[in-house]
Amino acid sequence: MSTRMFGEPVARREDPRLLMGQGRFLDDLGHEALAAAFVRSPHAHARIADIDVTEALDVEGLVAIYTWEDLPGRIGEPLPLLIPHPSMTHGRTGYPLAKEVVRHVGEPVAMVVATDRYVAEDVVERIRVDYEVLPAVVGIEVAAAGENLVHEDVPGNVGAVLVQETGDAGAAIDDAPHRLEFRLDIERSASMPLEGRGVYARWDSDDESLRVYSSTQASTSVRAAIAAKLGLAPGKVEVIAPDVGGGFGVKIVHPWPEEVLVPWAARLLDREVKWAEDRREHFVAAAHERGQAQFVRVGFDDEGRVLGLDVRILHDHGAYMPYGIIIPIVTSTQLLGPYKIGAYRAEVTSLYTNTVIVTPYRGAGRPQGVFCMERTMDRIADHLGRDRADVREANFIGPDEFPYDQGLTFQDGRPLIYDSGDYPELLRRVKELIGWDGFADRRARAAPSGRRIGIGLGCYVEGTGVGPYEGGHVEIDTSGRVHVATGLTSQGQGHQTVFAQIAATELGVPIENVQVTTGDTRRFGYAVGTFASRAAVMSGNAIALACRKVRDKALRIAAEALEADPRDLDITDGVVHVKGDPTSAVPLRTVAVLSNPLRYAFDEEAARATQFAVGGSDGPPVAEGEEPGLEGRDYYSPIRSTFAAGMHAAIVEVDPDTAEIAVLRYAVLHDCGRLINPMVVEGQIHGGVAQGIGGALYERMVYDESGQLLNASFMDFLMPYATEVPRIETAHLETPSPLNPLGIKGAGEAGVIPVSAVIASAIEDATGIAVAQMPLSPSELFHLMRDPSAVGPSPARPCDPASEPQGEEAGPQEQLKPAGLLGERGTSTPPAPER
Amino acid sequence: MSTRMFGEPVARREDPRLLMGQGRFLDDLGHEALAAAFVRSPHAHARIADIDVTEALDVEGLVAIYTWEDLPGRIGEPLPLLIPHPSMTHGRTGYPLAKEVVRHVGEPVAMVVATDRYVAEDVVERIRVDYEVLPAVVGIEVAAAGENLVHEDVPGNVGAVLVQETGDAGAAIDDAPHRLEFRLDIERSASMPLEGRGVYARWDSDDESLRVYSSTQASTSVRAAIAAKLGLAPGKVEVIAPDVGGGFGVKIVHPWPEEVLVPWAARLLDREVKWAEDRREHFVAAAHERGQAQFVRVGFDDEGRVLGLDVRILHDHGAYMPYGIIIPIVTSTQLLGPYKIGAYRAEVTSLYTNTVIVTPYRGAGRPQGVFCMERTMDRIADHLGRDRADVREANFIGPDEFPYDQGLTFQDGRPLIYDSGDYPELLRRVKELIGWDGFADRRARAAPSGRRIGIGLGCYVEGTGVGPYEGGHVEIDTSGRVHVATGLTSQGQGHQTVFAQIAATELGVPIENVQVTTGDTRRFGYAVGTFASRAAVMSGNAIALACRKVRDKALRIAAEALEADPRDLDITDGVVHVKGDPTSAVPLRTVAVLSNPLRYAFDEEAARATQFAVGGSDGPPVAEGEEPGLEGRDYYSPIRSTFAAGMHAAIVEVDPDTAEIAVLRYAVLHDCGRLINPMVVEGQIHGGVAQGIGGALYERMVYDESGQLLNASFMDFLMPYATEVPRIETAHLETPSPLNPLGIKGAGEAGVIPVSAVIASAIEDATGIAVAQMPLSPSELFHLMRDPSAVGPSPARPCDPASEPQGEEAGPQEQLKPAGLLGERGTSTPPAPER
Repeated sequence: MSTRMFGEPVARREDPRLLMGQGRFLDDLGHEALAAAFVRSPHAHARIADIDVTEALDVEGLVAIYTWEDLPGRIGEPLPLLIPHPSMTHGRTGYPLAKEVVRHVGEPVAMVVATDRYVAEDVVERIRVDYEVLPAVVGIEVAAAGENLVHEDVPGNVGAVLVQETGDAGAAIDDAPHRLEFRLDIERSASMPLEGRGVYARWDSDDESLRVYSSTQASTSVRAAIAAKLGLAPGKVEVIAPDVGGGFGVKIVHPWPEEVLVPWAARLLDREVKWAEDRREHFVAAAHERGQAQFVRVGFDDEGRVLGLDVRILHDHGAYMPYGIIIPIVTSTQLLGPYKIGAYRAEVTSLYTNTVIVTPYRGAGRPQGVFCMERTMDRIADHLGRDRADVREANFIGPDEFPYDQGLTFQDGRPLIYDSGDYPELLRRVKELIGWDGFADRRARAAPSGRRIGIGLGCYVEGTGVGPYEGGHVEIDTSGRVHVATGLTSQGQGHQTVFAQIAATELGVPIENVQVTTGDTRRFGYAVGTFASRAAVMSGNAIALACRKVRDKALRIAAEALEADPRDLDITDGVVHVKGDPTSAVPLRTVAVLSNPLRYAFDEEAARATQFAVGGSDGPPVAEGEEPGLEGRDYYSPIRSTFAAGMHAAIVEVDPDTAEIAVLRYAVLHDCGRLINPMVVEGQIHGGVAQGIGGALYERMVYDESGQLLNASFMDFLMPYATEVPRIETAHLETPSPLNPLGIKGAGEAGVIPVSAVIASAIEDATGIAVAQMPLSPSELFHLMRDPSAVGPSPARPCDPASEPQGEEAGPQEQLKPAGLLGERGTSTPPAPER
Repeated sequence: MSTRMFGEPVARREDPRLLMGQGRFLDDLGHEALAAAFVRSPHAHARIADIDVTEALDVEGLVAIYTWEDLPGRIGEPLPLLIPHPSMTHGRTGYPLAKEVVRHVGEPVAMVVATDRYVAEDVVERIRVDYEVLPAVVGIEVAAAGENLVHEDVPGNVGAVLVQETGDAGAAIDDAPHRLEFRLDIERSASMPLEGRGVYARWDSDDESLRVYSSTQASTSVRAAIAAKLGLAPGKVEVIAPDVGGGFGVKIVHPWPEEVLVPWAARLLDREVKWAEDRREHFVAAAHERGQAQFVRVGFDDEGRVLGLDVRILHDHGAYMPYGIIIPIVTSTQLLGPYKIGAYRAEVTSLYTNTVIVTPYRGAGRPQGVFCMERTMDRIADHLGRDRADVREANFIGPDEFPYDQGLTFQDGRPLIYDSGDYPELLRRVKELIGWDGFADRRARAAPSGRRIGIGLGCYVEGTGVGPYEGGHVEIDTSGRVHVATGLTSQGQGHQTVFAQIAATELGVPIENVQVTTGDTRRFGYAVGTFASRAAVMSGNAIALACRKVRDKALRIAAEALEADPRDLDITDGVVHVKGDPTSAVPLRTVAVLSNPLRYAFDEEAARATQFAVGGSDGPPVAEGEEPGLEGRDYYSPIRSTFAAGMHAAIVEVDPDTAEIAVLRYAVLHDCGRLINPMVVEGQIHGGVAQGIGGALYERMVYDESGQLLNASFMDFLMPYATEVPRIETAHLETPSPLNPLGIKGAGEAGVIPVSAVIASAIEDATGIAVAQMPLSPSELFHLMRDPSAVGPSPARPCDPASEPQGEEAGPQEQLKPAGLLGERGTSTPPAPER
């Protein structure tokens, strides 16, 4: 088999195991472990008056009940504020178990450990907690009103106010030939991986060490947290992410309360303890995302070129903000997409509510930003009567303008500079793929037979491969197997395949010989994690760099054995040989034996290839700067992110009677630089589009005003089936990133980002109704088609500078007051979910 | 507390734990493991006709019985020949379980796994093995006769013939003014650690990995062996040496059959399995050492200067030679001691016998070599009527002659070049310490009252710190703790103390903050092992080098934080500060937080000290060539060994009636270069001298001619009690080694090396009887005092060149034939052991 496999559509090597039920997910482990279950708050906001365990104590099989008062030292301290930012003036985090006050339904109040989960749940039911119910703050409007407070010491429920600014947007808008203003609403949704969270911990009293399996996206960070909380040396804590059944962001958070409590109990009890989240817990005790209200003002010229853009965002971050304000940072920077905006100002007000915490979910603020910008483009086109694609193209950054500095600060703290891309070419090709130019005729031809079809377009740029670093370790053992390790985790991305392709290509070995380990702190102790479309860029390049070190070392050692110049050597199919002379060769497995002066000769070949330890040379057996073993480690740490891009287009049909929305075609033109494996990238895109269709049409979190999540099950929370997702037509453009050795960019979140914008655009095209919300259900569309003011805010309207709120000084609260901006929709009357 | 502790007598940090019974030795682990026990051969040499387990199968609690036929693949192959050498023409090793033939009493024939050891031993007793007994080859004479063979395909039972030569020794002797020839006999002894061997294995089926605890001196090599034998990646095998109750060499061997079989069974059964050696097993199934017969010819001038030395050694290496011929290599090279020998030839014939295998035991061939050379010096002095010390001094290498090349090849395959030393000064000081110069008067004054007292002297040089390498890893965590790891193991040497002293000194941290881990492949994967007096030199220097890397990194990071030049910084008590300005400072724990761009801020101080991940600099968050984390690794790999030296002197008293031997005084002058911790070095020396006294007077393995070990218990195998060991007067000379950064040399084996020579010398001085054997029991001395020819060979006699055997051509077999050389002693009439 060829060993040059970079770029080939190698079938996912992990799939046979996973498809045949041989995966080892968290709950497949630890069958003999004690089980943990949690007493969780039934109230969105309440003071804990008393916890009475009397009735629970006689349940057979009960091992322990813990409340906040039982938690010693750092275990009982608030969870960390992970990513501090200067704008976070009022960052608050929760306790592993609630201390005095609960702030959302589902917040853990007590932990029960018992012989099995059934017993543990029985005990949970017998624990009586007296609550004094407090007023619940639910929804952006209620939070912004500031009448009731989620945290007594956080005035106005405002956790952070973030401003991103380039130029004088207010003046630019006021001076522009055309102006529009409108409001957009994005519902809450959530990652909803098929496998929930879970933690399984084993204390080894012989070794005074802890092994923790966690269904996490960031095992090294979980390790750091557990070590710090439990006062253990990091080297005494092993955290392993086993097979993980999806993450999509929710498993980035570290530590989850359960990730601290379960290991702590395991050590305290000197017993194995496991907790596997159930679906209801995942709905109310994990994390959500998306929820934003956006207030847009835009000024533009006759060509549709944006001269100024002002976006005020109210961001609902739930009861606590352990993960900081990454989401609104991403929304406010990535909103700009492939466009040059003359002057720009975004102001995000991040609000506490008595709901589940908000942390990144695939797309991580980008779908909201792209929804905003693409709705803006469509409204401009509509206002000017121009082709929507032409308006976008008029605003594109040109292919000769890279690196392009957007003048903002990105989530990595570095300047928002795009590395490479070709947006006009992406647009040209996606239009061609979907048949954009002829579509007006098609739509017109369909109308007489009562069919309402529409076409939509959505463009985005995605900062991928965010730093600060990932590392790779590569070892070739004495049987010729190649062991590749990187610290970040896998949740189904195909790392076992793509990282092996990189290693096989760099080292010149058959891919069958390459084994990849991820997310295991025993194998690699430094990592950031798998999120932000960063794994391929970060660990892929780190592994490539590590392979190059190992390859160089192998050539040096082989050169000595073959009495050749390393530069005259190459590696093919795992054998180092003189170029053009395959007979003058030494296999890598023998090079591995030779790499250790203490030559282990446990087989005849190795024994033949080697001899008594040292000798020969007069120098030290391990030369200066060398290490024994055919292995190497390196890090990839970029100066800034690389920027992938994509343009999606869809054709939808809306039933004029029922408002049912069918996606007839979906086309993706995608550019993530050089492709390691087009099949894996397409898989990522297709899954993302499916998730995006959920976000566009179905997914929402329906809270009532007391903070109860009304659709907290898969019976009520809708996700698209295969029947709702069309075949996705995908094509690639490859503009290599100049920032990294492999020229690659990330692709993990790509698919999901523009889907709501695309579907909204197509529905607008089909119906003539302005869409200002995501998701949009058939029943909402039904009502909109009959009364455009019935659901959601009114469509964009031209605005008069003089009628504006008080410009830069106007806070979001003031902006909310104009009734026209709020429309008639509020969280107090949530639409029923439908499919 | 001062952080400059190198050289100070810091109390052993491991002792409180060990002395209070908190040690965790192999058998303290795995209380729930299944137990293994072994069917072992009762015959020294036999063919296995049949193994019948019928009667064993109904024992309740039996889990499995394995014989050789059950062993798949490499598990069933012969154990490795660890250290091949060109002279080993007929290297043979055993199988993990005997295949067809057993070759010594105690060889494993079948393994039983059961619920506990009692059950396992019951099963062992019920397994019937039919043996066809073959003739046993026991003792050097029988082996050399070659009439019966241990291995059918090894003619003459000769495994290897090794020659070390410089100059023409035969001619030099023939031309010398004086010549002597004599024979010396050294009995077998054994390491006899208080804790025997032991293996405890856990297979983790979730992880497909193996954890093995072994009471070993070389955990990384055990790992390599297990990985190779079980076909596992080395990364999937963790080998940990827990607290080890002494090794003294016997635990170097890897893998022991049990070290392969127990992990193999643990994986096969998916159950924990443990085997802890009992004392009888240790006597017959571990390893012995020492046994040699030496035939010496020496030529010298009137001053006693040696002009030529020829030594022919018959070395008994037992039934197999897995550890090669390291022992005779050491004997034949280290024999030269501190002396310049004009011409030298050593020829070692390494013989198979049907006895327990022979592998290094503390001293590892040196006690035999030193016994030979020091007996030679005493015989020369006796022959010339000169002072024994003067004869030695006449042969010394001068202090200005270093580096001194002995012209031979040492055990590391490198030239035998002594690095530094001052032998005349050592001699002067040991004579002063023991009162050498006035002793003749003391002896004379004691004689009239019937007291026979004598003084003896012994000098040696010990190659220590043999390569090829050791590594050290040092990490400072975010709580300021320093984690030091090295791959070699500990068996009581005080590594937790001395390595911590090195790290505390190099890093400028309190020793309380330093934790040392040894022998754990999870912490450090490359190592050679703890033997050959190499741990301090090899790992000590590797740790120092790693500390220097970490220190440099800490200064770089702190310099940035303090806006200072790294060269202006120092570290005191764990705080980096500007020299002379303790207020401009940052603690190492904060430097550790700063070292990772992903700054984990789990406490307030860390949070204050750090801020959002990157930013500030424009460069990559992990700079080129850097890695995240405040840690570093380095290797020490010397071009050759460093040479410690010592001179011991003792005064003994022999009871003229009972021949009881009492050691009245024992003085040691020792030079192992710079001392890390004089208290630890003295502890090593004192223990070694005690063990040497055992070797000089008590320890021997008494085989009968059928190969049964008659004294295979501590009832019959004698070791000195504290009552037999005098107070040891110790003083140090420090000639730093120029080969390594710390200037140190090894000390682990030092104490044991010259003791037999010293005691023999003193007994000769007290009694006038030539001692030609080690050990020498009172009963043997009693007989010798009455009839000098009664026990052992005759004393040295002048030899006539013409009467010699056929010079270079004469093999050992021929040499054995002259009856005069063999004397009257043979293994068929072993003296009864006595105390």
